[in-house]
Amino acid sequence: MTITTVGLDADDTLWHTESLFRLTHQRFTDLLSPHCDPATLEARLAETEKRNLRLYGYGVKGFTLSMIETAMELTDGAVSTTVIREILAVGREMLTEPVEPLPGVDLALASLSERYRLVLITKGDLLHQEQKLAASGLGDLFVAVEIVSEKDADTYRRVFARHGTGPEQAVMAGNSMRSDIIPALDAGAWGALIPYPLVWAHEAAEAPRGHDRYAELGSISELPGWVASLP
Amino acid sequence: MTITTVGLDADDTLWHTESLFRLTHQRFTDLLSPHCDPATLEARLAETEKRNLRLYGYGVKGFTLSMIETAMELTDGAVSTTVIREILAVGREMLTEPVEPLPGVDLALASLSERYRLVLITKGDLLHQEQKLAASGLGDLFVAVEIVSEKDADTYRRVFARHGTGPEQAVMAGNSMRSDIIPALDAGAWGALIPYPLVWAHEAAEAPRGHDRYAELGSISELPGWVASLP
Repeated sequence: MTITTVGLDADDTLWHTESLFRLTHQRFTDLLSPHCDPATLEARLAETEKRNLRLYGYGVKGFTLSMIETAMELTDGAVSTTVIREILAVGREMLTEPVEPLPGVDLALASLSERYRLVLITKGDLLHQEQKLAASGLGDLFVAVEIVSEKDADTYRRVFARHGTGPEQAVMAGNSMRSDIIPALDAGAWGALIPYPLVWAHEAAEAPRGHDRYAELGSISELPGWVASLP
Repeated sequence: MTITTVGLDADDTLWHTESLFRLTHQRFTDLLSPHCDPATLEARLAETEKRNLRLYGYGVKGFTLSMIETAMELTDGAVSTTVIREILAVGREMLTEPVEPLPGVDLALASLSERYRLVLITKGDLLHQEQKLAASGLGDLFVAVEIVSEKDADTYRRVFARHGTGPEQAVMAGNSMRSDIIPALDAGAWGALIPYPLVWAHEAAEAPRGHDRYAELGSISELPGWVASLP
């Protein structure tokens, strides 16, 4: 079974976003510091995000709404409207932040695209993900872009059937064990974890040590060599 | 060239949403009536929505953020936080509103699905559109769902190539002349306008009278007959 298709996660695999979310958390705690200590605020924001996830999904707009809601709740409505306007501005800045590919991404993708069909598989706001891909300059290397609302085994089966030759001949590479690796392995694909220093709390999961279709790589620069080594 | 594929718009073609948006506008003007007359408020909200469209795209989350921003701007920050909490709640209600197919939709789709491949083609939030399709009970009638960030001729060419046998053998049906009909005709497909009483200001466009691949239908119940009559 020769590999024909390589799926790649986008956020924090091809470019930073988690660090941007962290920076935004910092600005959020600064804005609300007269009302609340940072630890409590972080905990409440995480609760709000989790509660809203089913409704808002992943992405900046839902995150902005959750920040506003948390600010309201924690201050019992005593927060100034200046703070709310600041939160709205922070959200808009996140949406227009320049997109810089992570080190090694350009070269690795250029090399992979010569031999395999590259498919971008990512969660998040449809419009915002398309804008980021366009801004990154990487769009032309992909034969397909799939922006999905959930990453489970069925998603990978469907996407690799549609854009490749099935999961058995596909590699999924990304920074999230829970979203990129485990369900891709479950679907019958290969999985390459490319760790990113910051991992979102919702995304942590156990490594499938000893799994014969799994590898943890040091960086994306190792991906072309690993894919080429597969049977 | 026998028709093989029928594309259908979702919001205000298969189920109401424009009326829900209007109802929300009403609640929004009521909430802010101590600060501002309804006409000014509507005009400013429309401005904010238009300005944010490129950034937020279509959908309830962006609309909620635009309502909050408008409330802030119009009252110069003097709006009470209770109002902001109400706006957040209104947005969440829009996301969980039950989805009721419009009259005639069930029968028309059941009939069409016996002879053609049905593809749902819609703008909006990915997660929210998937939730609405699931809640409508119509999901099983479609062979594919394409949630797109823009509806232009390229979109229809791509979608009808991927899920059908090209635009020449496809019909697109929907309530928006500008998004559903004109670009589908430009792509080489047939277009069936199914008017909905309320049309969003951004979606108005001239009817292509005399176009030989275009029809304006009285309701979706006429769609199966019209498609069957095509050469």
